[in-house]
Amino acid sequence: MALAETEIPTASVSADTALDGRFGPAVALSCRECGARYDLGPSFACIECFGPLEVAYDFGRVTREQIAAGPASIWRYRALLPVPDGVAARPNMAPGWTRLVNAGNLARELGLRSLHVKDDSGNPTHSFKDRVVAIAVEAARNFGFHTLSCSSTGNLAGAVTAAAARAGLDACVFIPADLEQAKIVMASVYGGRLVGIEGTYDDVNRFCSELIGDELGERWGFVNVNLRPYYAEGSKTLAYEIAEQLGWRIPDQIVVPVASGSQLTKIDKGFKELIALGLVEERPYRIFAAQAEGCSPVSAAYKAGQDVIRPVRPDTIAKSLAIGNPADGPYVLDIARRTGGAVEDVTDAEIVDAIRLLARTEGIFAETAGGVTVGVLRKLVAEGRLDPDAETVVLNTGDGLKTLDAVAGEARPTAVIRPSLDEFRSVIA
Amino acid sequence: MALAETEIPTASVSADTALDGRFGPAVALSCRECGARYDLGPSFACIECFGPLEVAYDFGRVTREQIAAGPASIWRYRALLPVPDGVAARPNMAPGWTRLVNAGNLARELGLRSLHVKDDSGNPTHSFKDRVVAIAVEAARNFGFHTLSCSSTGNLAGAVTAAAARAGLDACVFIPADLEQAKIVMASVYGGRLVGIEGTYDDVNRFCSELIGDELGERWGFVNVNLRPYYAEGSKTLAYEIAEQLGWRIPDQIVVPVASGSQLTKIDKGFKELIALGLVEERPYRIFAAQAEGCSPVSAAYKAGQDVIRPVRPDTIAKSLAIGNPADGPYVLDIARRTGGAVEDVTDAEIVDAIRLLARTEGIFAETAGGVTVGVLRKLVAEGRLDPDAETVVLNTGDGLKTLDAVAGEARPTAVIRPSLDEFRSVIA
Repeated sequence: MALAETEIPTASVSADTALDGRFGPAVALSCRECGARYDLGPSFACIECFGPLEVAYDFGRVTREQIAAGPASIWRYRALLPVPDGVAARPNMAPGWTRLVNAGNLARELGLRSLHVKDDSGNPTHSFKDRVVAIAVEAARNFGFHTLSCSSTGNLAGAVTAAAARAGLDACVFIPADLEQAKIVMASVYGGRLVGIEGTYDDVNRFCSELIGDELGERWGFVNVNLRPYYAEGSKTLAYEIAEQLGWRIPDQIVVPVASGSQLTKIDKGFKELIALGLVEERPYRIFAAQAEGCSPVSAAYKAGQDVIRPVRPDTIAKSLAIGNPADGPYVLDIARRTGGAVEDVTDAEIVDAIRLLARTEGIFAETAGGVTVGVLRKLVAEGRLDPDAETVVLNTGDGLKTLDAVAGEARPTAVIRPSLDEFRSVIA
Repeated sequence: MALAETEIPTASVSADTALDGRFGPAVALSCRECGARYDLGPSFACIECFGPLEVAYDFGRVTREQIAAGPASIWRYRALLPVPDGVAARPNMAPGWTRLVNAGNLARELGLRSLHVKDDSGNPTHSFKDRVVAIAVEAARNFGFHTLSCSSTGNLAGAVTAAAARAGLDACVFIPADLEQAKIVMASVYGGRLVGIEGTYDDVNRFCSELIGDELGERWGFVNVNLRPYYAEGSKTLAYEIAEQLGWRIPDQIVVPVASGSQLTKIDKGFKELIALGLVEERPYRIFAAQAEGCSPVSAAYKAGQDVIRPVRPDTIAKSLAIGNPADGPYVLDIARRTGGAVEDVTDAEIVDAIRLLARTEGIFAETAGGVTVGVLRKLVAEGRLDPDAETVVLNTGDGLKTLDAVAGEARPTAVIRPSLDEFRSVIA
């Protein structure tokens, strides 16, 4: 039974509701700190210890064949996600199943034996955010929310407004007012409300936390606040796809960007689930976290050997990673240390170089966030901290068309001429 | 045996070469006007009558199962394309297998029973050009060309330079100097040479024809000139994918954009091949051609009941369709008339409206070319020239991020505020 439209969905839904299949194999929310369990609901923090909640499952049997028979989208993994079995038939963006590019040219240039780029610029709004939003949309429907909202560094705002348009939901999203033009146009073209906030992403985020406590926002689905436990699960599909596309094998090493840190923790969770379900062989893997130097609170803590993340005020061209107070930072430190990975950062100049490097070797035009991961990959190889003989995957989570300014200064015509062979001869000599 | 690097590949290759599998099922080039046949070579015009050449095949048996077992790219149709059997393993962009979106919201708004959007913005460089370039790259390799070139309205330049980077070929591409910034950055970021020409696309095209006759360009593979017969075949994959994604069925009606007209003719060819091979049931289908009013030479000829296309000087925001002297225009007229379709055009204002319409109903942010097809679709439905009860497909061939200026004037934040609930209340009231 759907929630009545007038009901205010602050309480969690009953166990019966969870069991009617609307959340697929998900059975509860559990606290990542103290393990307390809650019924599935639009909640995100533990009442006992204020720790973050995450989705807990009872998977049953899941086979490779069952997955392979599914659609060319994240819905092939619906048996591993908090969504109903018929999710693929509902109007949604059907993101995922993006290319895993065998990056032989870049591997040779860096001195690696085997390198793949997981290229999430192929998603509908050209960033990995379509994955997480698609799960949040299903949760919003289940909880009877009619307005989707978020705080965003840009990519998420576009993903939310697009998904809301297609799902028939209202949208009202919040961004720092100084974002790239492409992200602003994209976030407003789909027809939802887009509100620019004078301030940093962290200011926007604080504003949204206030809003959700106010009657104005209390019946809204904030994908990265009250729907966050569901939303975050979408990032697991990156792990699933990489493993399946490698022929059901977890790579030895993976380089992942860190904004809030959520994506990295969910990739780790995804790999663990595949192992637990017997879908891949158990083997050690190392997760490397990548930040921009101008917003590197996790990298700074890692290098200082600390467990506490000290918030920073971001100043980097990698705006999609510019979260100065990353919620999942401590978990990122844990995972990097536990798996034998590392956390590293690169300068804005190194980011631009890495964007050019990836473009001219593999024909992939990455967002600044992709420059961060490829730049960190290059740095780790150069410093001997990444095994050059091990199978490596690097993530590109966004699209260069959204951060044109980063490379516009150097990515220009070789020459501009009149249509004359003589002029052409003179410029190519 | 590969052509020696010093050999000038103006002559056609021998029949033996064709039969070694490097061109897959392709067996010859044939003249579309007089039917004269030639060995497979880097030729594009009939020596007898100057008609355009196209690829002729000997397909043998091709099954649905064989195709479905292939990769999630155009290479699943390699048995229907002039490429070798092992093409998927070579470094290329692996384009295609883009989403066919069930556009229920847009259908309802227009009053159609069934509408799908074939969304080619999901290709690696976000336009359908990746499809045609991928085939041209294979032909270039077969003919021993080391430099890829083209005249382009923007999308093609990016597709060529990206594909060349990944394939390890040099690139030198030509565009009108006044293109959108996104297309200029994209076409130069991959590291090839990008030359802006002061003039229209038709000036650029004439310049390239001169260049190919000059010793400077005689050993270059111009994807849309001397490799055109191969290149053009890539558009057939749009027809194949649409049919397969509909459950192996040809739609009743399809709306296709017209620049040179090549894409439309190849979609027709693709449908015919599927019927001839028994992969789909034979049924009538109607092909509708869409142009921007500011560059509508084919539409003008159609409306005037003429067979001859009178070239125009383009003036439209739909720059990717701004070809004033479309090579395949007469074939487009033929096909629209033969299938019971039509050729129609829309104004720049209607293009912008249609971009917004598609975005707010389906979450798809189309390039101006997508505004042209959706705008023409809307016009044809409103005028009762399209059957509202018949299964309809409309093409979006490019990405809104490349033509931001078209909508930047209206796609803006609802408001910009300080992070305060009071300010927010005042702007959403």
